[in-house]
Amino acid sequence: MESRKQLDSLFKPDSIAVIGASNTPGKIGHSVVKNLIESKFQGKIYPINPKEDEIQGIKAYPTVADVPGSIDTAVVTVPAKFVLGVTEECGKKGIQSLIIITSGFSEVGNRELEQQIVDMANSYHMRILGPNIVGVLSNSNKMNASFAPFLPLSGKASLVSQSGALLIAMDASTYTRRIGFEKLISIGNMSDVSIGDTVEWLSEDPETTCISLYIEGIKDGRQFMDVSRKATKPIIALKSGVSAHGAAAAASHTGSLAGAAAVYGAAFQQAGVVQASDLDNLFDRALALSLQPALKGDNLLIITNGGGVGVLATDAAERFGIPLKFAPKEVQDELKKHMPDFGSAKNPVDITGMAGTEWYVESFRYALSHPWTDGVVVLYCETAVSNPLEIAQGIKQAMDESGITDKPVCISYVGGERSEEAMRWLVENGIPAYGAPDVAINAMAALREYAEMRSMMAEDGSTDVKVDREKALKIIADARADGRDSLTEIEAKQVFAAYNLPVTTTLLSKTEDEAVKLAKEVGFPVVMKIVSPDILHKSDAGGVKVNIKDEAGVRDAYQTILKNAKAYKAEANIHGIAIQEMAPWGTEVILGSVNDGTFGPTMMFGLGGIFVEVLKDVTFRVAPVTKGQAERMLGEIRGAPILAGVRGEAPRDKKAMAEVVTLYSKMIVDLASEISETDANPVLVYEEGKGVKVVDARVILKKK
Amino acid sequence: MESRKQLDSLFKPDSIAVIGASNTPGKIGHSVVKNLIESKFQGKIYPINPKEDEIQGIKAYPTVADVPGSIDTAVVTVPAKFVLGVTEECGKKGIQSLIIITSGFSEVGNRELEQQIVDMANSYHMRILGPNIVGVLSNSNKMNASFAPFLPLSGKASLVSQSGALLIAMDASTYTRRIGFEKLISIGNMSDVSIGDTVEWLSEDPETTCISLYIEGIKDGRQFMDVSRKATKPIIALKSGVSAHGAAAAASHTGSLAGAAAVYGAAFQQAGVVQASDLDNLFDRALALSLQPALKGDNLLIITNGGGVGVLATDAAERFGIPLKFAPKEVQDELKKHMPDFGSAKNPVDITGMAGTEWYVESFRYALSHPWTDGVVVLYCETAVSNPLEIAQGIKQAMDESGITDKPVCISYVGGERSEEAMRWLVENGIPAYGAPDVAINAMAALREYAEMRSMMAEDGSTDVKVDREKALKIIADARADGRDSLTEIEAKQVFAAYNLPVTTTLLSKTEDEAVKLAKEVGFPVVMKIVSPDILHKSDAGGVKVNIKDEAGVRDAYQTILKNAKAYKAEANIHGIAIQEMAPWGTEVILGSVNDGTFGPTMMFGLGGIFVEVLKDVTFRVAPVTKGQAERMLGEIRGAPILAGVRGEAPRDKKAMAEVVTLYSKMIVDLASEISETDANPVLVYEEGKGVKVVDARVILKKK
Repeated sequence: MESRKQLDSLFKPDSIAVIGASNTPGKIGHSVVKNLIESKFQGKIYPINPKEDEIQGIKAYPTVADVPGSIDTAVVTVPAKFVLGVTEECGKKGIQSLIIITSGFSEVGNRELEQQIVDMANSYHMRILGPNIVGVLSNSNKMNASFAPFLPLSGKASLVSQSGALLIAMDASTYTRRIGFEKLISIGNMSDVSIGDTVEWLSEDPETTCISLYIEGIKDGRQFMDVSRKATKPIIALKSGVSAHGAAAAASHTGSLAGAAAVYGAAFQQAGVVQASDLDNLFDRALALSLQPALKGDNLLIITNGGGVGVLATDAAERFGIPLKFAPKEVQDELKKHMPDFGSAKNPVDITGMAGTEWYVESFRYALSHPWTDGVVVLYCETAVSNPLEIAQGIKQAMDESGITDKPVCISYVGGERSEEAMRWLVENGIPAYGAPDVAINAMAALREYAEMRSMMAEDGSTDVKVDREKALKIIADARADGRDSLTEIEAKQVFAAYNLPVTTTLLSKTEDEAVKLAKEVGFPVVMKIVSPDILHKSDAGGVKVNIKDEAGVRDAYQTILKNAKAYKAEANIHGIAIQEMAPWGTEVILGSVNDGTFGPTMMFGLGGIFVEVLKDVTFRVAPVTKGQAERMLGEIRGAPILAGVRGEAPRDKKAMAEVVTLYSKMIVDLASEISETDANPVLVYEEGKGVKVVDARVILKKK
Repeated sequence: MESRKQLDSLFKPDSIAVIGASNTPGKIGHSVVKNLIESKFQGKIYPINPKEDEIQGIKAYPTVADVPGSIDTAVVTVPAKFVLGVTEECGKKGIQSLIIITSGFSEVGNRELEQQIVDMANSYHMRILGPNIVGVLSNSNKMNASFAPFLPLSGKASLVSQSGALLIAMDASTYTRRIGFEKLISIGNMSDVSIGDTVEWLSEDPETTCISLYIEGIKDGRQFMDVSRKATKPIIALKSGVSAHGAAAAASHTGSLAGAAAVYGAAFQQAGVVQASDLDNLFDRALALSLQPALKGDNLLIITNGGGVGVLATDAAERFGIPLKFAPKEVQDELKKHMPDFGSAKNPVDITGMAGTEWYVESFRYALSHPWTDGVVVLYCETAVSNPLEIAQGIKQAMDESGITDKPVCISYVGGERSEEAMRWLVENGIPAYGAPDVAINAMAALREYAEMRSMMAEDGSTDVKVDREKALKIIADARADGRDSLTEIEAKQVFAAYNLPVTTTLLSKTEDEAVKLAKEVGFPVVMKIVSPDILHKSDAGGVKVNIKDEAGVRDAYQTILKNAKAYKAEANIHGIAIQEMAPWGTEVILGSVNDGTFGPTMMFGLGGIFVEVLKDVTFRVAPVTKGQAERMLGEIRGAPILAGVRGEAPRDKKAMAEVVTLYSKMIVDLASEISETDANPVLVYEEGKGVKVVDARVILKKK
């Protein structure tokens, strides 16, 4: 694969040119050469500097053209104004990629120069990492191709960071946290190589077992989701900047609710990406995800020598979504053999402060091997009578002897230097260890979330549905031809109907007689509404009459609505009056969509009325939405019990509702190039088997 | 104060007897003597052992009676069966308090012996800490009167722990976390000295600036709240065991919702106690609360050298309730002098990765001293061009030179060993420093919560209201005389009315003619309901008819209800039929109360119907509830905007509603000895100025 090979040149090159290499300490071109030497890079280093014969003891060349033989990648450190020329030289030399450390491009508004460089590189089939980055660090390659001062502590996870300063600081903190990384990749302005590209590459990197991401903003959300879905190892993301977003003016209800946290959260879940809540959490969860298998069920057993940490762990298990269950009696009976009388074989299993290595190891050994158990958390409070390192080693030995590799184990030690030593040993030997019980439980929850998301993705099923896209596009084209950038309710419902969405029958009458004829066709009682692209708030204009029961009523309503509309806005372009089926009462829900700047068509579901307006009890998915995902949307709002039936009411038709969500999502994907935002509000959901009706519809077109 | 002096003997004694002192390593009586010696305790140590002349080089005595001179406190380590005798000997000797380490009492069901020991101690005016504890450790006294192996790293906060194992483990971890404590107090079974007693004592301890609590369950919630309210320094509590509680069967709706997390959370808030979310958070928040003043306003300014940590801090500030605001232009203009062109003077103030000590210190100096600023968080990402320790020292110097002591400062350093060193220096010099930006923000949020709770308490006002307690008690006594442990709706409303709660007029008719008469009195339309202590679910029994408009309707309803009730339960004792004013529609809310095992009468407020049944959108306060607190209850439910008026509706009468909450809370306190649980559901709230109506009322009496 051409593309993969080119990224190989970035992340595990055999030869590196350093353009702007220097003998002057303090210059980045000095640091990069020094760092490559100090990290003991085994490939070839070619310092490029027109004025020096030798850089830090290595032969230098005036330009890359002067280097004999081929070069895989070049680290570019020269000032911004020279980068375009350098890019061309590198292209001519046949270099496969550039690591452009230099800043002063799009991050300070200099987009044009950045684009010229990308275009130049593309013309030579050359990939660019950056610009405005720290560089690339790889433990397995002994390569510090960056100006960060040293390679990180070695670990199994790799980190891609959109913040250079944070990457450097995290690099240093791997040694104090004792949580290492295999590779650190600074992604910078992402002019060419995207976060998705690095995820794709790292997914195939045998040295990386977990992909960690610090994300400020993804450029191509769809590509990121696609490669993440296909990744064969856990991905964890810390998304920052969730508070600033969503303030932009929105034309729809849905638009006003589609903040960054909601949309990114949906995208991560659909793509199987575990989330981190903060920086510590990113380190802690990445450690577990990089060292342990997924937690494939809910049967988590906790072993502890202290009741206090046991209770804290129990609280945390509930908080993080894996509430503890008691093991079967046979398991409890066996566990009781490894504790004093006043111990407890429930969950947490409290082997008491009297516990030494033997009780720990034997209860752990049994717990791990029993078929009931899906995973084990061991908690330890430092005591004078126990040896933390010995316990750690005993646990590791029991794991090895069991031959079990598909059940995760996490450890928490609360204590001092002796406990720290044991925790270091555990991490070095592949077992995640943490200084507080809730942190270990949270790490286990990450392993559970990963398993759950992946199993949901496997069950998701298709989003294939039969629709009439051409018809929908025709309606939109007609509205555009009319000079409009939104559809009337009638048009919007016609578009919805083209996607088999169950809209209330709504027909356009242009005369009073036609209104009577159509009302008879629709069947009494009917609703009548003004249809005018110039009147958005129909009720305010006196443009809506409900529960009209006969011909006289239709005639009366027709005149009244027309009069009201003209009084409201004399110059309004009136298409006519809609005659609409009056839907019986049902549970009100809202559907809607936005065209998210990052992820494209994204849809919302929630309960209607006060639930959406006051409680903002809504949930999002990037479209298309599979039936499985649609069902989960229905289940994950706070008001979900209302759909299940409360206060003696029959359950609502969730099956039909989930189908509607799927169809709706298909519609907004199909029409993404035309549609900006939509709302279907209210949508009425009836009893099981009785379906759904979309009562009002709104479609805002993209400005063209 | 007698009581305080006795606790002095526990927490800063001049002389300590160790009963069960031993020369045999491994025995607790050995550890305690050894620990007192190794901690360099300056007072007198009297080992008590009938068989030894000397213990670890110190003269031993056979009994406390043999010790010349007085003894302040005795650490008891002998087996449980000897403790009662020892207690008597100590009492006779005039010892003021006992630190009973020995276990095997109420924690294993041996309540009787524990009570005998307490009674014995009381008879000699002697206080008991424990039993079943680790002991007492105090840095300022150089006293390790425990079997924990060493004094903790010295700090300004003191910790009281209900878990001994956790206390020992936390002791050790003070050295690895570099967060110290002044005193560690193991509280164990709390047979005599309570958590509240220790809070009261520590509040006056000049060596302690913050009181940290690890709580599994408080015994006397009211005492705890009282002493906490009076404390003159911050208190922080980590309450564990929030997931297990609340499963007990409850007779009322309110009872089923009053879980431990909700009730403790309310009590902590009312008593001005800051909460910790987990063990790390307890350390981190205690550090800030022990070293820095409260954050008295929302103007928090963040200074950073890295955009990434700045964004993470911004997210955290929003998450933890102190969303960032921009400083006034003059502040921004001045700050711009200490950063490059591409820096940002907004908030966070980004002085960029080029920042060295000078920019940090000068921007900090200005920010701290400007009147706009209420507090400052400094974020630092380790870079090669800066010196973390020098920045730390510069910040400290600027703080000292400013003379400002009422604005808090917290720091976060992300980095390696150089950053760790700087953070250690900062903490040793009184400035809280943390390894991640969100942790520093969370610590600052603790300082804000403390200030907010204290200022709310100052504004709370009184709970004094005029009521007719005697009348309420008479109604309850009559029901009890009738052999019942619940009130009928009519009785419940009479009790409510005695507390000036605005119940719907509800009168009892015993004949059809009386029903007609009363209906005319009440005014049509009326509601009629069966009144029977044997029929709790009146609607299910066909025992409710609404909107009865005339005399014929009353007669018809009277017969129908009676017939239905008899068909529903032939043997039911029927008091008659209630004639009730039909209240106009209003916003439905629910009030209710439980008699919490820890905190006593506690009340609930929430929106009614689906809000309480499905969303459990309710809030609690320990009663009595001041008007200020009642107003906050109305504001803190998720559905609060509904009371403010949504969808064009007028605002609800929150003033009247808050008054009702206050009256209701007064009622449940006054009648706490009689009432177990209550519900008022629904209560209807009308437009501003139009008041509130309690439509249904339920009172469950205490079983006697």
